Amino acid sequence: MGVVTPPTAKAPKQDRSRATRQRLLEAAVACLAEVGWAGSTVTVVAERAGVSRGAAQHHFPTREDLFTAAVEYVAEERSQALRELPSQDRAAVVAALVDLYTGPLFRAALHLWVAASNEEQLRPRVTELEAKVGRETHRIAVRLLNADESRPGVRETVQGLLDMARGLGLANLLTDDAARRKRVVAQWAALVEDALG
Amino acid sequence: MGVVTPPTAKAPKQDRSRATRQRLLEAAVACLAEVGWAGSTVTVVAERAGVSRGAAQHHFPTREDLFTAAVEYVAEERSQALRELPSQDRAAVVAALVDLYTGPLFRAALHLWVAASNEEQLRPRVTELEAKVGRETHRIAVRLLNADESRPGVRETVQGLLDMARGLGLANLLTDDAARRKRVVAQWAALVEDALG
Repeated sequence: MGVVTPPTAKAPKQDRSRATRQRLLEAAVACLAEVGWAGSTVTVVAERAGVSRGAAQHHFPTREDLFTAAVEYVAEERSQALRELPSQDRAAVVAALVDLYTGPLFRAALHLWVAASNEEQLRPRVTELEAKVGRETHRIAVRLLNADESRPGVRETVQGLLDMARGLGLANLLTDDAARRKRVVAQWAALVEDALG
Repeated sequence: MGVVTPPTAKAPKQDRSRATRQRLLEAAVACLAEVGWAGSTVTVVAERAGVSRGAAQHHFPTREDLFTAAVEYVAEERSQALRELPSQDRAAVVAALVDLYTGPLFRAALHLWVAASNEEQLRPRVTELEAKVGRETHRIAVRLLNADESRPGVRETVQGLLDMARGLGLANLLTDDAARRKRVVAQWAALVEDALG
């Protein structure tokens, strides 16, 4: 590939293909967050993205392919944004980490997790994806918090903080929990600050 | 009612009715935890409980009635068990609180929450139920932890702990997270102990 076709002729086509793929992935996350797994099909997402069903299936042969790729893509975008955060105090870092779990990405991921718990076809892929995203988020959190994991308890402090963030995301699912969350985050940022030294 | 009929004749019938109701509620939680909202209907639960569909509908006219009542019933059972715990150290209390979020009740409640986020018929009832169960769990946690909520930050420390417990429940959905959870709980129990003094 790419040996015969001159690169100049190929690049625009690749760009279009990449743009289509990206539109599909973004539409899939939005769809999953809004209507849940039962209502999220390749057809619905293709329509939403303004892409033909055939083109959508060219990129993502199955429903499982599309939605796991979508959650992975948006998680990777969010990780990238976190990695680029300027250095800041720990309270701000804790707030930024919690923010990961209160938007449409978390809602979409939650729908996918819960569906995977009952669907054998989805389960291994989502389990793998969750582990991958979890490891990456932990790694970023350790760096942003400037946490020294060689000290006893530090690793578990950071893990518990991310578990708390996930729980706060769940508490935000049916109601706007922002006011309560802000107070909880402020208090636990202080406790984490003490624990990390 | 009860004025004409002698109580001795009525009691066994009431007992049978109560036993049927209880069987339906327990079957509903087990069903929701195992197959999720999409597969959980009154018919499926009636079969599982060994009760006729008519009898099930006498007790619970709609699917929403049955499943919200079921999650409320089992949550109340769990709260009662917690209230009866003997007085013990805070680490044991933290572990017992986290245990609330790792069994079939949490799985059932999670399916109901996630379904409610997309179903208008379910949403107000589950929102109300979640608030009620959340308040009650918080109240029990404060008492068991011997936490003085008049001190600044104590309320938010307990709330954050319960949010973490909820996040640990979510982390346990697809994989057995018990080994990691044990280490996180031990560390966070120590942080809570320091914070509560």
